[in-house]
Order: sequence, then C-alpha cells, then structure tokens
Amino acid sequence: MALRGALSRLFRTHLNHTCQQSRAQSVAVLGAPFSKGQKRRGVEHGPKVIRDAGLIERLSNLDYSVHDFGDLNFHHLERDEPYMDVNFPRTVGAANKRLSGAVSSAVSAGHTLIMLGGDHSLAIGSVSGHAQQCPDLCLIWVDAHADINTPTTSPSGNLHGLPVAFMLKELQDKMPDIPGFSWTKPFLNSRDLVYIGLRDVDPGEYQILKSLGIQYFTMRDIDRLGIQRVMEVTLDHVLARKQRPIHLSFDIDAFDPSLAPATGTPVNGGLTYREGIYIAEEIHNTGLLSVMDLVEVNPVLGASPEAVEATASLAVDVIASSLGQTREGAHASMDEIPAVKKDTELLRL
Amino acid sequence: MALRGALSRLFRTHLNHTCQQSRAQSVAVLGAPFSKGQKRRGVEHGPKVIRDAGLIERLSNLDYSVHDFGDLNFHHLERDEPYMDVNFPRTVGAANKRLSGAVSSAVSAGHTLIMLGGDHSLAIGSVSGHAQQCPDLCLIWVDAHADINTPTTSPSGNLHGLPVAFMLKELQDKMPDIPGFSWTKPFLNSRDLVYIGLRDVDPGEYQILKSLGIQYFTMRDIDRLGIQRVMEVTLDHVLARKQRPIHLSFDIDAFDPSLAPATGTPVNGGLTYREGIYIAEEIHNTGLLSVMDLVEVNPVLGASPEAVEATASLAVDVIASSLGQTREGAHASMDEIPAVKKDTELLRL
Amino acid sequence: MALRGALSRLFRTHLNHTCQQSRAQSVAVLGAPFSKGQKRRGVEHGPKVIRDAGLIERLSNLDYSVHDFGDLNFHHLERDEPYMDVNFPRTVGAANKRLSGAVSSAVSAGHTLIMLGGDHSLAIGSVSGHAQQCPDLCLIWVDAHADINTPTTSPSGNLHGLPVAFMLKELQDKMPDIPGFSWTKPFLNSRDLVYIGLRDVDPGEYQILKSLGIQYFTMRDIDRLGIQRVMEVTLDHVLARKQRPIHLSFDIDAFDPSLAPATGTPVNGGLTYREGIYIAEEIHNTGLLSVMDLVEVNPVLGASPEAVEATASLAVDVIASSLGQTREGAHASMDEIPAVKKDTELLRL
Repeated sequence: MALRGALSRLFRTHLNHTCQQSRAQSVAVLGAPFSKGQKRRGVEHGPKVIRDAGLIERLSNLDYSVHDFGDLNFHHLERDEPYMDVNFPRTVGAANKRLSGAVSSAVSAGHTLIMLGGDHSLAIGSVSGHAQQCPDLCLIWVDAHADINTPTTSPSGNLHGLPVAFMLKELQDKMPDIPGFSWTKPFLNSRDLVYIGLRDVDPGEYQILKSLGIQYFTMRDIDRLGIQRVMEVTLDHVLARKQRPIHLSFDIDAFDPSLAPATGTPVNGGLTYREGIYIAEEIHNTGLLSVMDLVEVNPVLGASPEAVEATASLAVDVIASSLGQTREGAHASMDEIPAVKKDTELLRL
Repeated sequence: MALRGALSRLFRTHLNHTCQQSRAQSVAVLGAPFSKGQKRRGVEHGPKVIRDAGLIERLSNLDYSVHDFGDLNFHHLERDEPYMDVNFPRTVGAANKRLSGAVSSAVSAGHTLIMLGGDHSLAIGSVSGHAQQCPDLCLIWVDAHADINTPTTSPSGNLHGLPVAFMLKELQDKMPDIPGFSWTKPFLNSRDLVYIGLRDVDPGEYQILKSLGIQYFTMRDIDRLGIQRVMEVTLDHVLARKQRPIHLSFDIDAFDPSLAPATGTPVNGGLTYREGIYIAEEIHNTGLLSVMDLVEVNPVLGASPEAVEATASLAVDVIASSLGQTREGAHASMDEIPAVKKDTELLRL
Repeated sequence: MALRGALSRLFRTHLNHTCQQSRAQSVAVLGAPFSKGQKRRGVEHGPKVIRDAGLIERLSNLDYSVHDFGDLNFHHLERDEPYMDVNFPRTVGAANKRLSGAVSSAVSAGHTLIMLGGDHSLAIGSVSGHAQQCPDLCLIWVDAHADINTPTTSPSGNLHGLPVAFMLKELQDKMPDIPGFSWTKPFLNSRDLVYIGLRDVDPGEYQILKSLGIQYFTMRDIDRLGIQRVMEVTLDHVLARKQRPIHLSFDIDAFDPSLAPATGTPVNGGLTYREGIYIAEEIHNTGLLSVMDLVEVNPVLGASPEAVEATASLAVDVIASSLGQTREGAHASMDEIPAVKKDTELLRL
C-alpha cells in the first residue's frame, strides 16, 4: 500500500513534468473543422478564417516556436440516428475520439496547444486528451452558455450543449451510454471547473450548476464584482490548493454579439473586448496555460465580410493575449527588464 | 386624535394590502399610444413595436398570467392653445387623466402593470393613478433627462419635460394652474424619488434638483461609483425607512444611443446594455415592483428597420428583467432550488 | 546667492501669475493643419472638421470669451531628406518652432489655449511653447501610444511617434541633433508626465517607460483600477507636491476605434465615451488646465461621412468637458448654487 502510494506519486510527478514542459516556448496550432455538434453549417470553416486573420504570424511575433499541425480530417458517419433526441452521436463521438488522441500527443510532445474549432462539442475530445497527459488539470470555460446539459435536460439535442456533462465525475450516473462515446469516461471534479460569462442558462443546467456547487460567474456577477475580482476569485478557486495545468475553453460567443457577430448562438450583453483580453492576460500571467480551445467562429453567419473579419480578428487577439501579448508592449524583451512591476506599485499608493 | 391615528393606520394597511396584491403573479400590459407631450411624430407607435418584438410571449415564459389590456384611445383636442409656452396642455391633460384611471383600476385589480408609451408626459397619469392605490409608493426614474422643468424653466415647452414637476409636493407653489390638469394634485415627496442615468439637465432643472436635495445619479456618478453601488444607494434611499411599492419609470433614452437609436432626444454616453439590465434585475429582486413605464420608443426615428428592432427588443429585455428574467437561467424553477445563493458566498471569499 | 534666490522666486512668481491668468475665462482656439509627422494624408484637415462640428459655439455656451485665432500656415520644405530614418525632420521642426511661438504668445496673453491638430508631432511645439511661459507645467498624455520613441528605437521613423522624447530632460543624451530642432531643448522631468490609455507600446518605448519610472496607465490598468481611481492617482502624481498648470495632450485614438474611426493608427480596446469624458471632467475640476492639444482627427480616413462626423463630434465633446461642460447641467449657473456637492455626500453613505 505504501509502495503503491509511492509509485502513484512517482507517476504523478512524471505526468506533471510532462505538463510543465507543455508550458514551454513551443506552441502548436491544431484545426478541428467540425460542425456536427450543432445544426448550423459554417462553423467547420472556423480554423480557416482564424488562420487567415493572421494567427500564426501573431504567435511567431511573441517569440514562440509555432508548429501549425494543420486540420484534422473528420467524417460524417452514415446511419447516425439520434439517440434520446441527441443528434449525430456517433459522428460527434468519433470526431472527438480522434481529437482527443491528437491533443494528447501534442501535449505529450511538450507543446502548448491551441485548438481551433469547430463547434464546442469538440471540447469533449480536447479536454479529455489533455487530461490523459495532465490528469490534475483545471478547466476555465468562458462562454455565454454552460454547455452542461445531459441528454435528458437538453432542449435542442445538439451535442455542443452537452460537452461538460461528459467530463464531470459527479454527473456519471446522469449520463446514459451514448453511442460513439464508449472511448471516454468522466475525469473531472466539478470543483476544478469555473465558468465565466454565462447569460443564457437552461433550467436543467441551472439545477446542475447549483446542486454540484460549481463556481460560475454570469454577466451579472461581472457587473457586480468587476472583471478584475472575477479573475482573482477564478484563479484562486482552481489554483489556491495546488498549481496545476489550465485548460482554457473559450467560446467566441462569450463576447458581446456587437464584437463577435459571426457565431451560431449569440446572446446580448456579453463580454467587452477589454474584459475578454483581461481574462486572457490573467490566464497567461499564471504561467500555467497548457491547452486552449477557441471555438464557434462561424463565417457563414456573419452579415458581412467585415463582421466575419472582426470575429476572426477577435479570436486571434484573445489567443495572442492568452499566450503573452501584452497591452504595455515589451513582448519578448520583457524578460530583460529587471524593473519593479508598476501594477504592484499602484496598489501601494 | 388617537382614534384618528388608528383609523389612518387601518386605512394605510388596507391600501398596502392592495399594493401587495399588485406584486403578485398577474401582469397587465397597457399601451398608451400618445405623442403630444413632444413635437416629433411616431412615439405613439411605441406600444405596437414593443409588442411586435415579443413582449407578451416573453412575459408568459416567466410564469406570469399576462393580461394585455390593449391600447387606450386618446384624442387630440381642438383649440388647444399653448399656455405659458406649454404646448397642447388640454390634450396632454385629458390623456393623462384617462391613463391615471386605467392604471388605478389595474393596480386595484391586483396586477403588476406595465405601461407602454408613448412619450414621457404619460408618467403624470401613470404615477398618479398608481399613487391613488398606493400613496406610499416611491419613484425610480431612469432617464437621460430629469423631466422636472416647470412652465417657467422649460426651454422647449414640451410637456414630456415637465412630468415630475406635476407630482412633487415641494413644487406645488412653482406650478401654475395649467388647463387640462385640474384633476391632479401633487402627491409625492421629493425624498421618495431617485433619478438614474441623467446626462442632459437644463439649468432650471439643476436648480430644482439641488434646492430640493433630490437623490440623483448622473452618468458621471455611475462612472465613479459603478452601477452596483448606485443601485445599492438607490434602493437604500427609497426603501430603508420602509418597504413600499416601487414605480419604475424607464425612458429608453437612458440607454446609449448606439443601443436605443429609435428615440426622440438621444444623448451620448448612456447606460450600457448590462447596466440597464442590472438596474432592472435589482428592482425585481426587491419584490416590490408595482408599476413600470417604458416610454419614448419612437420607430419613426430609427435610421433603419434594424435600428427600430434593436430599440424595441431592448425595451422587451428591460421589461422582462424587471419582472424576473435572470441571466443565470432557472426562471420559474428557481423556487425549487434550496441552495445557498452564490453571490453571497462570493462576497465572503 | 540669497539675492539670486529671491530674484528667482520673484521670476517664478511672475511666471506663475501669467499661468494663473491663462486659466481664466478666456479661451483661445488655434488650428495647426499639419500632417508631416506621419505618412497618411488628411490629418491636416482636422482643425476644419472639429470647428465644423460646432466647437466654437459649444465653448461660447460655457460662458467663455472665445477667441478663434484661425489656422497657422505651415510649409513643406524642399530637400528635406530623412535623418537616421526620421522622415521630414526640417519640415516638422520648422512647423513646431512656429507653433511653439504661437502657443507661448497665447498663454502669455492670458488665454486657456486649445490647439487643434494635425498629427501628434505638434505636441513638441505646443508643450514647449507652453513651458516657455509656465516652466513648472505637468503633462497628461492621453493616447493609445506612448509617442516616446527616439530615432534609434522608432520602428516607423514618423515624428508623431517621437514627441515626448524631445521634451524629457532624462532622454537628452539619447537624442541626436536632428536637423530642424536646434531651437528646442528638453524641459520636462519625467516625473511630471503621466500617460493614460496606452495599449500599443513599442519595445524600445517600454524600456524607456520602465527605466525612467514614468507613471502610466495602460488600458489593462484602467480595467483593473477603474477610471475613477486612475484619475485620482494621475492627479495626485502630478499635483500632490505642488499645484501647477496642466498641459493635456489628447490623441483622439485614445478612444476605441468604434467611437473614433477617423484616425491614422487606431487600436482596439480603447477608452469608452464615458471614460474619455470622465478624464476631461476631472482635469477641468482641478481648475488648472492651461493648454490642451486635440490631435489626430483625420477625416480622409473615415469610412463614411458619419464616421468622420462622429470622430469630430467626439473631439468637441472632450474639449467642452475639459473646459467645464458637465453632465449634470447647470453650466454657468453652477456658481450661484451654494448646495453641498452630492458626490461627496454619496461617499459618506
């Protein structure tokens, strides 16, 4: 028993070492052009428009070695009948299995990984693949929606509204055996999850959030507390007990529709540009970002080319800020400057 | 004397009982298609576009029994010459007398009432009708303008800039006997009034606000204090001494013109969407909302159909939030969940 | 030595007296239609569109005696070859020499001066001319950019990115003798400078800001602290040791591009309308504003006439608020009202 504990600790140490490496100076970009987690066509073109908006160049300017792994190939399975009103279960399951393997490999190889969606059902594969390498990860979910429905509570039957329910250990007995998902098992404790930006929560989701005591911040909470305090509590919640790898799952619809119009389920009253960038900066500043999803950019739904471009540029800005682009400049040369940090001085005034 | 006090208390109790009923699960909607309190045509179509934006369905989804009383009929009186430069006094007076009776009846029947304007001169009838049933009401006025001119101070002579002056006991000796208004007498103490959102105050109005010591929050105050603190002080100001029915008089021009372009007197630098919703949520959370005016949506002044639709949808959102629509979902099922409120926990962190 | 000290004090007193006069009820407006500090054509039309947006009338309504001095004439010198990659050095130098004299005269004549650019290289002349009359001035620089490059660090070679480097005593040994600028010498201590609104800072600029310990607030700082606290620290930084004349150098690109699109180097995530007005109000409230630059309005770069008009109107609003236009009205009549200030009461609640 004592030996087993020691082996377990050794194993954990090994895994953590891998996860530490993944937060090194190598960034991998992986496209996931997939849209079957919902019904609107076009979100499979998300990776292309985000790259076209200059993502790779922006990350290269941040002094990273950037590896663009291109796009995964996904297949739409024939005869994929709904299961309990859940649409395309086998197609979504197979895509996520593939993505999970790719994410696991990239993290194992020491990259910080940026996964470009596609719809948010892809988080099932992305977070589970990440957890294979870093089982102690925490998950920060920035989104207008909680995406935590079960097949029973889902009003739409779209799998992009269910991904978090696949991950949580506490929901294991609420989740039926959905065809296409036998490859994955719940791996996350609900206390290692924080939501930011919620403003359209289904009744069943609300009951889950409350009964599991999940830490979440609606837009009302941001109105009350301010984004600075929200990030303080968020990071304290997931990191205070233990430093651990962060999985940031960022749905572009967390932003206000005036900023990110080209997306499938926009909801008024979202994050401002500055709030979104602030979230990204704070996560970067932990030094613990390991995998980031940027999902739900749908160029077909933009009312104009400008609307699409604005949405894609916003995605690039959030990714770059999550990886260290700062608003006070300095970029790479920051390390060379030994000066005391101004922010800290301010608080002492 | 002691007997009289006891009778008075009994009478108050009776009235309060009626007002308590009005905060029950029955919501009435009353349209007031009236525009003679100002000079721009089109605001009489406000009730129609707000209903077309889905008001009744949205309120029905909130578990209310919704009664749409349709629109009142108003008449433009012949030979309605200006009085002391005040335009259409008899027409505006007659319309408000009619509205006052309708509001009084609806409150008496136990409804929470939503009055759809029309221009803001209609508040004279709406608040006075409400006060007939609930003489201890308080008034929260959300607006870019103070609407507290007297005939002497008014730069425009438009009655939608004067309604509050008709209500305040302290201004009784400043108000002449304007034809058309003999049916109403001042009924409100200035300490039972709070303004939110002011940013275009006439010199005479400023003198009135200051000399009466009225509690008001300009946009500058919101910039300084934040909307959370503003609502805390507002509700403390009107409710700390006594729980009482709230009359919320909401002019859509309180919002920034980028959000509510279809209105007659837009002023830059207004409320954000989230601030407006926060105000509405906080008022709902008191459990004391009794009557709400939503005025000055003018579809003729929108530069495009989209501009009109955005303004009308915003009106629906504010009304729905004032009646309990929340950003964390749950809606009707909220009552079933016994969990500790997350917001409160946060503050203890 | 004692005598010399006494003479020096007398001289300072004289200068301060002049500077006090400049904060009197006389406002001068001076146009500087100049664009050679950068490469995009059109910013020389800034003074015209700002005047067309109603500047003079708005200032007249504030009870000022307004003197419009018209526009300065500038010449594009022949044979103005780059020096160390710095473009048009002699043309920019000559224009600023001319502007410096004009600003000095206007301040000496007792006016509060509003300088309308033109590009931001004009601040070299404006601030230096101001400093000739008021050597103890402080400088508040509201801008997306720090404009503190030296010829060595500048990525573009455009002089509108260098003006602050010409002013600072601490950078004297970093600045070569650029042709066209022999008429001016550094005159400002870096501790008498505060930046607000930075969000696009070049690496060399960052090093200068840090090594000189300059007080600056990026948009991130505003996100963290709020604009109220930022202004509190700003004014404390420049005024706590000593009341002194304020030079406000306001680049319209400090605002978010959605508000000020007609400008040459827009950067996302800028000041909101309300934050910009708040900055202006707070500076007015010191009673110490002596000279204000409003620069970088470029009508040629607006995508539509509406975009140009919005940018120019915003410039007028910021200038008017810097000179006392308030959001609670009252304007000139404010002085007549002896009431306690509401803002102060609030803080005591």
